[in-house]
Amino acid sequence: MKSAPLRVTYRLRAGGDIQKRARALALEQSIETPLAAVTDPRVLDEVVAQVERIEVLPDGSALAHLALSAETIAGDAGQLMNMLFGNSSLLDDVQIEDIAVPSDMAQTFEGPALGIEGLRRLVGAGTRALTCTALKPIGSSVGDLAQMAATFAAAGIDIIKDDHGWAPRARATFEQRVVACQREVERINRGRASRSAYAPALAGDAEAMREQLHFAQSHGVGAVLVTPMIAGASNFNALRREFPAMAFIAHPALAGNQIAPAALLGVLFRVFGADAVIFPNHGGRFSYTRATCLSIAARLREPLAGLRSALPVPAGGMSVERVPEIVADYGRDSMLLIGGNLLMAREQLAERSREFVQAVAAATSTVAT
Amino acid sequence: MKSAPLRVTYRLRAGGDIQKRARALALEQSIETPLAAVTDPRVLDEVVAQVERIEVLPDGSALAHLALSAETIAGDAGQLMNMLFGNSSLLDDVQIEDIAVPSDMAQTFEGPALGIEGLRRLVGAGTRALTCTALKPIGSSVGDLAQMAATFAAAGIDIIKDDHGWAPRARATFEQRVVACQREVERINRGRASRSAYAPALAGDAEAMREQLHFAQSHGVGAVLVTPMIAGASNFNALRREFPAMAFIAHPALAGNQIAPAALLGVLFRVFGADAVIFPNHGGRFSYTRATCLSIAARLREPLAGLRSALPVPAGGMSVERVPEIVADYGRDSMLLIGGNLLMAREQLAERSREFVQAVAAATSTVAT
Repeated sequence: MKSAPLRVTYRLRAGGDIQKRARALALEQSIETPLAAVTDPRVLDEVVAQVERIEVLPDGSALAHLALSAETIAGDAGQLMNMLFGNSSLLDDVQIEDIAVPSDMAQTFEGPALGIEGLRRLVGAGTRALTCTALKPIGSSVGDLAQMAATFAAAGIDIIKDDHGWAPRARATFEQRVVACQREVERINRGRASRSAYAPALAGDAEAMREQLHFAQSHGVGAVLVTPMIAGASNFNALRREFPAMAFIAHPALAGNQIAPAALLGVLFRVFGADAVIFPNHGGRFSYTRATCLSIAARLREPLAGLRSALPVPAGGMSVERVPEIVADYGRDSMLLIGGNLLMAREQLAERSREFVQAVAAATSTVAT
Repeated sequence: MKSAPLRVTYRLRAGGDIQKRARALALEQSIETPLAAVTDPRVLDEVVAQVERIEVLPDGSALAHLALSAETIAGDAGQLMNMLFGNSSLLDDVQIEDIAVPSDMAQTFEGPALGIEGLRRLVGAGTRALTCTALKPIGSSVGDLAQMAATFAAAGIDIIKDDHGWAPRARATFEQRVVACQREVERINRGRASRSAYAPALAGDAEAMREQLHFAQSHGVGAVLVTPMIAGASNFNALRREFPAMAFIAHPALAGNQIAPAALLGVLFRVFGADAVIFPNHGGRFSYTRATCLSIAARLREPLAGLRSALPVPAGGMSVERVPEIVADYGRDSMLLIGGNLLMAREQLAERSREFVQAVAAATSTVAT
């Protein structure tokens, strides 16, 4: 039996013969060859992407619903990105609006190893929303970072992640950061029920990331930060399979604005193995709307081929003052990430961090489980 | 002495306080922290990106010229992409217009191992423009591909590459394609001065690509096709260093439209190690202008820190009829890639391929060396 296709909705900007453009797109994203050049009937029947439906919208743009053959993707995440948007990404009048990954394809990629429940177990949190912060700025000394990690852990923040900007051969190396920050977090964790977790940022090529994961794991680290669009989707998916006990928190850097965030961050990052996905919340430094953000969260948690749900992590210029509103938006199954807004308290970092933790606990008690 | 910075020109769409937006961009693309939160004076002096100049354009948009600290990049290609455009790529009002890589940074990445001269030696071409075609469509049988490779080689096409759409576990596997196509190309090469080269497409995670490179090299293959934006820039750069005898032909899939093609394909792909760079020529299926295309070619061949030049490969819906015009545009130091247009000849594939080779030779003889 032929496997179910990957269904993708492309938005074509106004203009031209929409039927013709949709058929051209189907060729571009599959065999990249004119039909007149194809001599093998199997290729025409089973390999070429199909235009299933076209909707012309009031503004003259159109949604082209295409089915991409599973054979062209062959269970590889990078190849999925290639077939999804490889050549078309170069065009200035095509965007990706939505994506539906068939069950067997999603299961091939395996999705989150831990998911929301696994992340809750990692930090010993019950059913409340989780808290997250970042060790910043890059360029800081290892000593400063470790002290910051201790302050955050003492305040009860669940996940203390590296800034995603740490270079692989930075002044404070990956290994130095792991040794120093993990030691401080473990020291604070001793003798209390809840646990903070340190999540260092993977960087460099896939082999460097693999070594970083081994090093982190051997030092008791339970979570890492990864940037799938910089690491490459295939590498992210491969590393997640090789380290099934590690929580992967995905960062959206280099994700661009040509693929709808709910499709890329909400569907694909989860399918490729993210246990939690960071995205820029509305009303901060970025331009995602509230509807876009809620849609990312919904896709991360929707039933999908039996895959575990992933935790939405709204971030990007959030403040402690906005906690009630953010918790009301995303509910208990979310993790609030506040970085710079805590650090701006400088000498009052400890107090500000406790305020953050208390605000999330208080706000959570008011929303339904 | 502090290393020279990476200089980047961002285009900010019209609106708002441009000075303020440029300063915010400098923070976003370096420490990702409000200045008020930074306590370490070294970070302020040496790590934060600097706004060097702002030009307001007649249409109200602005060019913000930023200097990104080399320390934040630390000699890693993925990290360069992260600092260049990680968070800003999520915005809908910022694009990258230009980039200048300082000499010591360019030398760290090493650039092309073979460059234009190395590619000429690989195929035994003198000073003429080179020819390239693709084995298509994906989904074809190994036998069909090998026969096609033999036809193309017999016609004298220099580089016969895989379509970039071959999945790592495709029906015709990487290993099967290498064995069958390389054998045919070598058979045809025997006893003639010029040589055709088969270039299979790398796919999968970096470890899979490494194995593919070993396999290809051990079977006498001298060139491969790679997609840096899918593989991940760090992985591409790492593989190029591990296989310095192999020619890397870079494909632009997933490059998007948010970074100016001359900056991404013309500068960065070369700096990271591409010996040849494929791009969609104007007047084909894509929307790049002639000026954009000529600018890509110019950047690939301009003097840059002593790095080897890379070969421009105009492609994307080209035809044999357009050869004279394309050669006039790009000159001798280029490689013309025609795929589908040859295959449409079907039973006349051999004749059409010879026409292509002859047209390029004839057109080249009319342009200056």
